[in-house]
Amino acid sequence: MIKQLTIFGVGLIGGSLGLALKKAGYCQNIVGCGRNESHLQQAVELGAIDRFTLSAADAVSEADVVFLAVPMGAMKAILDNIKDHVSKRTIITDGGSSKASVVEAATKVFGSLPPRFVPAHPIAGRETSGVAAALADLFVDHKVILTPVEDTDAQAIESVTSMWQATGARVEFLGVQQHDRVLAATSHLPHVLAYALVNTLSQTAYVDEIFEFAAGGFRDFSRIASSDPTMWRDICLENRDAILENLAGFQRNLEHIRGLIDNRDGQAIFELFKSAKAVRDNHVCPKTKKA
Amino acid sequence: MIKQLTIFGVGLIGGSLGLALKKAGYCQNIVGCGRNESHLQQAVELGAIDRFTLSAADAVSEADVVFLAVPMGAMKAILDNIKDHVSKRTIITDGGSSKASVVEAATKVFGSLPPRFVPAHPIAGRETSGVAAALADLFVDHKVILTPVEDTDAQAIESVTSMWQATGARVEFLGVQQHDRVLAATSHLPHVLAYALVNTLSQTAYVDEIFEFAAGGFRDFSRIASSDPTMWRDICLENRDAILENLAGFQRNLEHIRGLIDNRDGQAIFELFKSAKAVRDNHVCPKTKKA
Repeated sequence: MIKQLTIFGVGLIGGSLGLALKKAGYCQNIVGCGRNESHLQQAVELGAIDRFTLSAADAVSEADVVFLAVPMGAMKAILDNIKDHVSKRTIITDGGSSKASVVEAATKVFGSLPPRFVPAHPIAGRETSGVAAALADLFVDHKVILTPVEDTDAQAIESVTSMWQATGARVEFLGVQQHDRVLAATSHLPHVLAYALVNTLSQTAYVDEIFEFAAGGFRDFSRIASSDPTMWRDICLENRDAILENLAGFQRNLEHIRGLIDNRDGQAIFELFKSAKAVRDNHVCPKTKKA
Repeated sequence: MIKQLTIFGVGLIGGSLGLALKKAGYCQNIVGCGRNESHLQQAVELGAIDRFTLSAADAVSEADVVFLAVPMGAMKAILDNIKDHVSKRTIITDGGSSKASVVEAATKVFGSLPPRFVPAHPIAGRETSGVAAALADLFVDHKVILTPVEDTDAQAIESVTSMWQATGARVEFLGVQQHDRVLAATSHLPHVLAYALVNTLSQTAYVDEIFEFAAGGFRDFSRIASSDPTMWRDICLENRDAILENLAGFQRNLEHIRGLIDNRDGQAIFELFKSAKAVRDNHVCPKTKKA
């Protein structure tokens, strides 16, 4: 149970957390903070927050928990704004898609990572953004990864865990670097590939036919290219090293397959596809069924 | 209405056509032909065909329409087997994923492309294969692309069109080369990328975490890597040139994005993602809603 939760950035993720915790009766008072008054007013009308303020100082002075759901590129500026107004007992957590950069930003702003700062990442999203797309059940049965460090306060971890469990999410733990490398592989790289694919196809001679005859596989594959470009620009910048590492591995694999196709090496192509199918069937399908 | 339809290769596609046409009451008699007696027996039990034979000569001698649903790599061998037994009035059509190679195979076998040969490609599939995965409604609201050439018999085109319409499919027309380039872009390239992605991730240090924390985007994206490796090997060999052309374009785009991420060029990354999102939203989403 939280007395006051303050959400910075009441969009899809921030708004969904507000809706979920209100529905669960887990928060007495939810305060939204941002720069756009009409968005915040809309968030009040949708029931995602109880009230809003444009002042970071006001927003955090009475907060028990502060949740940062702003784009990755805005994290440091928000931390700068709240630094002198947040009390030592206040728990700060975030929803950023890469964790090393948030930890680094908080460390820069506060001198060292505050023990009551709990880096977190809810693995949930939609292709639409903004509070109008927020859903009270967005996090149900989704994973939320916490990446506390050695000095993180145990009680703060416990509070953030309970908060996310109240939304129906499953809380899991990874190291900061481990999170960033895993997410670069499973989420950031696929997004970059989807953007690259759509861009490639838009440059071909048959662009209209291509989209007209797009099969289900292409629709699924390209769906994530409809994601918010600001968010994904920020992720590319903030998790740059892990993304570049995964991208290099992908480029090597793709060039290898290209060579096999070029050389008409049917046997090697078959073995490679068969092995990918086995990995995918063994790993992903059982999880999908469980979910 | 067809008196006798003969299906070579009673798997997912061949079996689904049989089920759909029986359900529609569009065929008096459906004969299956293949090499595996137990698979063909299963197809009879599932109601996809009325009877089967292992003899290509028997299979086609009385057929009004012959449908080739064997893997692309087996097309030419089947055509060789039926050449001397098929009557001049028999319509031959196929379900192959690339069309130039089928046209080339038929031209080699018959000396020239028979006027009653109608190359076709139903845009439908599942990640599972075999007749046990066949569905009577697999083609409902799906596109079937016919790629007749100048000399193709108009009545044969009409018959194949009616047959596919009886399954609930929408029949469309493309040129042979146009089909192959469009499908390379929308289907073949995405499959190659999905196989390459899964292979890349299976080689990383965090492979178990990667699959444990796979988000929805990755599941959608990698789903097609569970497709039949034999079928996709054949497609890579049969539609090699168009796939290589699209792959080269994709590799250029991906290398460009990699450079932007490497150089931390946030503005250019944003513009590129925004443009891809606009293309995808404008082209794909309205179609998806309509479908």
